[in-house]
Amino acid sequence: MTGEDSFISALRAMAGHPAARGLADDCAVLELGGEALVLTHDMMLAGVHYLPTQDPADVAWKLVATNLSDLAAKGAEPVGVLLGYQLAGSDDRFITGLREVLDHYAVPLLGGDTVGGSGPQALGLTAIGRATHRPVPSRSGARPGDRVWLTGAVGGAMIGLEALRAGRGDSLRYRRPRPRLADGIALAPHVTAMMDVSDGLLLDALRLSRASGVTLALDAAAVPLDCPAARRDEALRWGDDYELLFTLPAAVPCPVAGSPIGWVQDGAAGRLRLDGVDLTAEPGLGFHHQQKP
Amino acid sequence: MTGEDSFISALRAMAGHPAARGLADDCAVLELGGEALVLTHDMMLAGVHYLPTQDPADVAWKLVATNLSDLAAKGAEPVGVLLGYQLAGSDDRFITGLREVLDHYAVPLLGGDTVGGSGPQALGLTAIGRATHRPVPSRSGARPGDRVWLTGAVGGAMIGLEALRAGRGDSLRYRRPRPRLADGIALAPHVTAMMDVSDGLLLDALRLSRASGVTLALDAAAVPLDCPAARRDEALRWGDDYELLFTLPAAVPCPVAGSPIGWVQDGAAGRLRLDGVDLTAEPGLGFHHQQKP
Repeated sequence: MTGEDSFISALRAMAGHPAARGLADDCAVLELGGEALVLTHDMMLAGVHYLPTQDPADVAWKLVATNLSDLAAKGAEPVGVLLGYQLAGSDDRFITGLREVLDHYAVPLLGGDTVGGSGPQALGLTAIGRATHRPVPSRSGARPGDRVWLTGAVGGAMIGLEALRAGRGDSLRYRRPRPRLADGIALAPHVTAMMDVSDGLLLDALRLSRASGVTLALDAAAVPLDCPAARRDEALRWGDDYELLFTLPAAVPCPVAGSPIGWVQDGAAGRLRLDGVDLTAEPGLGFHHQQKP
Repeated sequence: MTGEDSFISALRAMAGHPAARGLADDCAVLELGGEALVLTHDMMLAGVHYLPTQDPADVAWKLVATNLSDLAAKGAEPVGVLLGYQLAGSDDRFITGLREVLDHYAVPLLGGDTVGGSGPQALGLTAIGRATHRPVPSRSGARPGDRVWLTGAVGGAMIGLEALRAGRGDSLRYRRPRPRLADGIALAPHVTAMMDVSDGLLLDALRLSRASGVTLALDAAAVPLDCPAARRDEALRWGDDYELLFTLPAAVPCPVAGSPIGWVQDGAAGRLRLDGVDLTAEPGLGFHHQQKP
């Protein structure tokens, strides 16, 4: 076990409240006053989650967008965010990007904390949402016979980061991900399981199969790409695309633009197959945060 | 204006939602589903907010306790926390302290994020509470003629940090602050204004006078001390004691153990007097986060 794995195991052991969902979901879901409150918190560190040379306006956008993507996976409507901000030299550009992303998604800034410090910049964001449908979708409801679906395409963020590193302009998919909030709300009443794809399609699909106790069998050729077809293998393992991965009973038509990319099978629990090959034990199945960007 | 001041001004300009309370309060207060949700987020950086050599169990306690203190200032009951954690070498001790503080206050861990990184450790905590009384207390309701009150005493954290630096054992008041949750709940129906004292009694009293648009006149000798009387001036400017500062109409008896330390006067808005001397413009009135510990 890595240090992160053992730390998370220890946290999990103390997260017995049902709202915590065993720390195995995209968000906490807290019943309060007749609403289901959906809560998520992500941190980003300079040099780990973003390039220290990146435009802080893009960093602000991504910080908010990745948390809203977690809400999207619950079919939740955002109600506000709290920001944790370590001052750096270029705070004006951060403000610009923060204003852009909050305006774009009509999400209010509710509060937070600003700190000074001399190390690499650390950022945190808490997003608060309200569920639009009960039960609130989780990763754990996929059933044998369900079809596996994906919104959009993968590989765009991979190409985008390469463009950014090369100083080319076509890096938007990496710099400014678009959380699938409207799709999540439309899907919530129909899906058996749902999550967002942040760490790579294959790794996240394996997580969904583990949470649901099923085998997921995916068809590589069915996955839409935002990159050259020759890079399909990489694109399936790359993160940062923030699409929604979900399962629907076979008879239920998909209510949003999406692609069927496989099936839930009645095999061993927590296994992933791609074109018939079991990838469950493959190292480097997806991107871990430590390795990004 | 410092970088932090101008950054916060820019944030304030985009925090127009009433739940944000103009970013001038201890917490956001969000009406949702018939409940008033109370939300706060604080960051702590190694070397800025705690000594890198401190026991991580104490750091975990303080991270949670300072956020619960913000909830106490709203008379809120904690419903859960989200943790943002940058892995360090000593994660087991952090887990121990986290378990202790969450058990002590019966607060569930609901979720969060764990990241790897090589710089000084960054931590974030979001605390979620529900208000026990409406209207939810703010800093802005103090009225001329109200009496100013303080729970407990100040100076204990100052002595505690000195003990910690000297390797003595009597450092508990600095290492393990006790948020006044029960007092906050008992006070909420009665106070005209309330806040917690995190950055120093005088600085926080000035903030309350600004938010309320009044003059606060404090009597130094009336402030209970947890340190030698010779250090009164320092103790009034030191932070980290996490007592509650509040105002009550003169005719209302204080429902908790507290000390009357002054009066709200009908003077100029946003001014602070101590023993008749106007301190409003005094530099270094309290501890700013950048200077701690």
